[in-house]
Amino acid sequence: MNEVSGAEAGTLAEAGLSKIDALCANTIRFLALDMVQKAKSGHPGTPMGAAEAAYVLWDRFLKHNPRNPLWADRDRFVLSAGHASALQYSLLHLTGYDLSMDDLKQFRQWGSRTPGHPEYGLTPGVNATTGPLGQGFANGVGMAVAERLLAETFNRPGYDLFDHRVFEIVSDGDLEEGVSSEAASLAGTWELGKLVYIYDSNHIQIEGDTDVVFREDVAQRFRSYGWRVYGPVDGSKIQDIDEALRAAVSRSDKPSLIISKSTIGRFSPLAGTAKVHGEPMSPEEAKQSKISAGWPADKEFYVPDEVYAHMREAVERGRRAEESWNSLLEDYTLKYPEQAERLRLQLNGKLPRGWDSQLANLFSPQSSPIATRDASGKVINAISKSIGWLVGGSADLAPSTKTIIEGVGDFPYDEGGRNFHFGVREHAMGSIANGIALHGGLIPYTATFLTFSDYMRPPMRLAALMGVRVVYVFTHDSIGLGEDGPTHQPVEHLMSIRAVPNMTLIRPADAFEVAQAWKSALENDHGPTALVLTRQKVPVFDREKLGSQPAVDKGAYILWEPQSGKPDLIVIGTGSEVQLALEAAKKLASEGVRVRVVSMPSWELFDRQPAEYRESVLPRDVRARVVVEAGARKGWERYVGLDGEVVGLDRYGASAPGQVAMEKLGFTVEAVVSACRRALERRGM
Amino acid sequence: MNEVSGAEAGTLAEAGLSKIDALCANTIRFLALDMVQKAKSGHPGTPMGAAEAAYVLWDRFLKHNPRNPLWADRDRFVLSAGHASALQYSLLHLTGYDLSMDDLKQFRQWGSRTPGHPEYGLTPGVNATTGPLGQGFANGVGMAVAERLLAETFNRPGYDLFDHRVFEIVSDGDLEEGVSSEAASLAGTWELGKLVYIYDSNHIQIEGDTDVVFREDVAQRFRSYGWRVYGPVDGSKIQDIDEALRAAVSRSDKPSLIISKSTIGRFSPLAGTAKVHGEPMSPEEAKQSKISAGWPADKEFYVPDEVYAHMREAVERGRRAEESWNSLLEDYTLKYPEQAERLRLQLNGKLPRGWDSQLANLFSPQSSPIATRDASGKVINAISKSIGWLVGGSADLAPSTKTIIEGVGDFPYDEGGRNFHFGVREHAMGSIANGIALHGGLIPYTATFLTFSDYMRPPMRLAALMGVRVVYVFTHDSIGLGEDGPTHQPVEHLMSIRAVPNMTLIRPADAFEVAQAWKSALENDHGPTALVLTRQKVPVFDREKLGSQPAVDKGAYILWEPQSGKPDLIVIGTGSEVQLALEAAKKLASEGVRVRVVSMPSWELFDRQPAEYRESVLPRDVRARVVVEAGARKGWERYVGLDGEVVGLDRYGASAPGQVAMEKLGFTVEAVVSACRRALERRGM
Repeated sequence: MNEVSGAEAGTLAEAGLSKIDALCANTIRFLALDMVQKAKSGHPGTPMGAAEAAYVLWDRFLKHNPRNPLWADRDRFVLSAGHASALQYSLLHLTGYDLSMDDLKQFRQWGSRTPGHPEYGLTPGVNATTGPLGQGFANGVGMAVAERLLAETFNRPGYDLFDHRVFEIVSDGDLEEGVSSEAASLAGTWELGKLVYIYDSNHIQIEGDTDVVFREDVAQRFRSYGWRVYGPVDGSKIQDIDEALRAAVSRSDKPSLIISKSTIGRFSPLAGTAKVHGEPMSPEEAKQSKISAGWPADKEFYVPDEVYAHMREAVERGRRAEESWNSLLEDYTLKYPEQAERLRLQLNGKLPRGWDSQLANLFSPQSSPIATRDASGKVINAISKSIGWLVGGSADLAPSTKTIIEGVGDFPYDEGGRNFHFGVREHAMGSIANGIALHGGLIPYTATFLTFSDYMRPPMRLAALMGVRVVYVFTHDSIGLGEDGPTHQPVEHLMSIRAVPNMTLIRPADAFEVAQAWKSALENDHGPTALVLTRQKVPVFDREKLGSQPAVDKGAYILWEPQSGKPDLIVIGTGSEVQLALEAAKKLASEGVRVRVVSMPSWELFDRQPAEYRESVLPRDVRARVVVEAGARKGWERYVGLDGEVVGLDRYGASAPGQVAMEKLGFTVEAVVSACRRALERRGM
Repeated sequence: MNEVSGAEAGTLAEAGLSKIDALCANTIRFLALDMVQKAKSGHPGTPMGAAEAAYVLWDRFLKHNPRNPLWADRDRFVLSAGHASALQYSLLHLTGYDLSMDDLKQFRQWGSRTPGHPEYGLTPGVNATTGPLGQGFANGVGMAVAERLLAETFNRPGYDLFDHRVFEIVSDGDLEEGVSSEAASLAGTWELGKLVYIYDSNHIQIEGDTDVVFREDVAQRFRSYGWRVYGPVDGSKIQDIDEALRAAVSRSDKPSLIISKSTIGRFSPLAGTAKVHGEPMSPEEAKQSKISAGWPADKEFYVPDEVYAHMREAVERGRRAEESWNSLLEDYTLKYPEQAERLRLQLNGKLPRGWDSQLANLFSPQSSPIATRDASGKVINAISKSIGWLVGGSADLAPSTKTIIEGVGDFPYDEGGRNFHFGVREHAMGSIANGIALHGGLIPYTATFLTFSDYMRPPMRLAALMGVRVVYVFTHDSIGLGEDGPTHQPVEHLMSIRAVPNMTLIRPADAFEVAQAWKSALENDHGPTALVLTRQKVPVFDREKLGSQPAVDKGAYILWEPQSGKPDLIVIGTGSEVQLALEAAKKLASEGVRVRVVSMPSWELFDRQPAEYRESVLPRDVRARVVVEAGARKGWERYVGLDGEVVGLDRYGASAPGQVAMEKLGFTVEAVVSACRRALERRGM
């Protein structure tokens, strides 16, 4: 390492680094830079500015096992500033994760494991997909929640099976996004002392100096939430970061924010400017950066041997840490066999045998009409008895969404409390649920009105993209909610949610379908499910009389057809409008029309069925098709085609009693019958 | 008023009220209660708790003219806690707005002007539709921005044409929502001293005590943003509220938050509990509430004569205030005729004659390929010369979205600066834009990547619901953006935005279409428009060679057909995929297929065309139809039916160079040709 030792001296003195620390930090820095330069795309600035802080965190504080990135009691590291992905990939490579130098060289290329932003499930050691700012911040809150709940449930004296922290690096942009305010306020209220966030404060964002848009006193703001704030410290000084982290982990009573002042693009000629934030440098500037740091300017993807030697000590440390945990778990299993079995089930994401046995008898065909939100409340309370790790709550609408689990108390105020109160913070609710799901060991659900799903679109998308199991309870699912009026009446939301890849939306028609919908949601362990429920009462269909069985898992099924032979007309309904479809069909049947009624709670589940099944429900050549759904019309042509009719909405709702709003806006048996006649006429029938 | 004078004495002493003040506050309180009771639906608690604060604000501070609710220099009052609508309706009625007692009695009924939540455009005196929490808070920031910009532009020494404040009542829920954090931080950074918000702190939300979810130190939090905080004061004491408001309006250098401690459902037996938040009381409880306040228990919708007499003084005060302003404007018109003319244009929401004259020659068919985001940047800079009141900016992506207006400086740092820097706060950006549009006098635009439209869905919906003109610039509109990967690559967003009623989405194919898209957006003064633009370069189509003219205003038009006679096949494209449609069509045409290419930048504009036009573009009996769009497939069946083909995406994108991502995910000429062959085959051709 003769090349660096000369210039290094000055740097060392300035930053108070030992030589190996300086080497490691610079290796991280320039690996990241080289990745961006090679890809001709990416964000060099933050990795170069935060290299020291990231290094000391990973080298001295992070409890992890690079050879088992999924070890249950590892500290969770999340790079909320996901655009700095090259920083994380450098750390993963250097500490011995299964991420090779070739992987680093494939940064941002098709099929690589080093995509533009960290992706959960793709790269070992990435605990959350980040990039959309603020999300990682809030995910970490969910992870800390999970840690606490699992510790409360499973830890026993002498058996601290769950005792880990959540470390993050967050950026100016993360703190500007409202979701981080929501999540930080909750973390403070809940006193999540295992959260330790390093705020990389580099004073630069894409449009320039943060002073133009972000003059708040961040320390004061976080203290107001109930956080402990450390710093500002000089983020280029290993010793300062080390001391702040040491102080932060010495207590666990409040979340911690370490303000680390850094220089974006440190050592670059563009350092401290927005130019170094989000694009590669010129080759000359890249070279100059290395020279300024005393780094060999002619080498790319250069890792000094002693850096590998030092940083890969993480492998041995990690192995020992997990081994010791595994033997603790073995002892625990002997002493607490039942808990241990349940723990394994939870960590594997499995459901207990017979968990759904209560569902079959929860409702009877003789039940009087019941709102699907109420049916859902009964289902939640039935299944949460056997699935003790179903946890969730509402954004201040629990009484309306019927999502309280009775008798188990509130998080974090009651021991083992599983009911969450998120306040009016839908966005953080969604992101925290993602964090809980990502942590593993628990199944989270959230609840609000369907119209407020708009507030939580970003985490819903990320849940779908990451493929994690989160259940969204959305009640008050149409203009049928009534008097609260158009701000509260969803119209476009069904279609907007259906458009999200890997999202499953289920809008059950009655209590039986609700029970099946919950079953589908919990069995879907590769993505989120949105359960869309009514405020108003709907009939419980007597399946014996109708001659069918509910089949929510198939997405759509024949609910009723009065005659044999091929139907002339198919009437499709979802949710509360299935009753209209059925009544309209009965009327037409009484006039001799051969009509079929299809209940279609879920497009996504239906589209996944084999072609034969789909053809059996919606035969290709039956083109007189009508759908009725109290939501946006656009998109239903997918099932009714150019010759069909959609009884839906192209406008907003209105404040009036629910039944009045429904009738005035065209959701009546007569309107469906008229639409059917038009569809038949168009087919010359 | 013998009935009240007895019990009144105690109340008066306790609260430090003069008799008329107490009468007015109780009238507001019990009108609101009676509205909820009669409707059997609504939120009595906040109106009953905040009656005194609302009264003193409206009686002593608010500058308004009940007989002209649209007076340009009025103070803007926004009830961010929109669920307390009955409070606002009571105030509007009592101060002499065109809102009758019969209107109050129609609360929450079909067709009434007193809907469940305040609706802009429906009820005179309602300056913003509120209800979704946090929105009103951020709208007010936009209104204060507009006031400052208009003052900077038009005020002259001795002519303070614009000098008004924004008063709001905000609730716990408003402050929990992240959007209010974003907006408050901006208001502090921008030093919007005309903002005066009363925080009705009643310690109760739907799920119970706010302590469960909201333990932050609100005063400290707002001070960290740069606000001046007053209180906490006793919100039931007129004198305390009066003093706090007096202090707040005595300075205009920073925004003000008055913390007003109140008791939800004051005087009700349910006071101070969540039970009184969002539902009617029993008749007995309602009666008891009146008795506790010394109010006649047997009267409903009762307004003592002296209350009318006192509160309707607002009419005369308002008349005088506006008259004096009108004569100021007359003088101003004589002295500054040009400014005055421009002012009238702006306040009327009109565009100057010939504003679009520069658009025709901005691009030439010989232009080399240009990204539609770049074309949009040129258009913005051209039209902002003639429309000096086009104002906007980006959520920290200005260099990428190409939305900087050159040479006019930054708000609020440069005199008359029209470029806004919102920071990474898409949600507040959208809500502030709504506030600017609601204020009147300016046309706002916003900018971010299409994928981050998810962060601003709530204000986008409200813009559409209110019918206000906001232009959303959404760039990086597909997987074609490349390396940033799936978190940044929109898929479902086109469809999700199209589903919103009264939202117009335009995805132009080339620079010519971009110019027309902006024209459509600005001429659409009854709702928002989303302009969806590429990061990557796209060809500028030579219309002469293609034999067509762009017609974005029609939503879809025939771009090319090589032969006469009816087409066998129609290929539809949008945005960057129109080139694929065109190339595929040319290939098929060379093989003798009679094929038409349709460019379809906007569903909404197309759907508004007469049936004949739509039939001329997409003849009903041409069923071999193919669409290509780099977004979600679902929904396109609206135009291609059950027999067509959609070249689209059912999955997320991937990190790779843009062209590679496009090809790997199936957006190639060959893939479109194959889809065309399948569609033809299906029709037996």
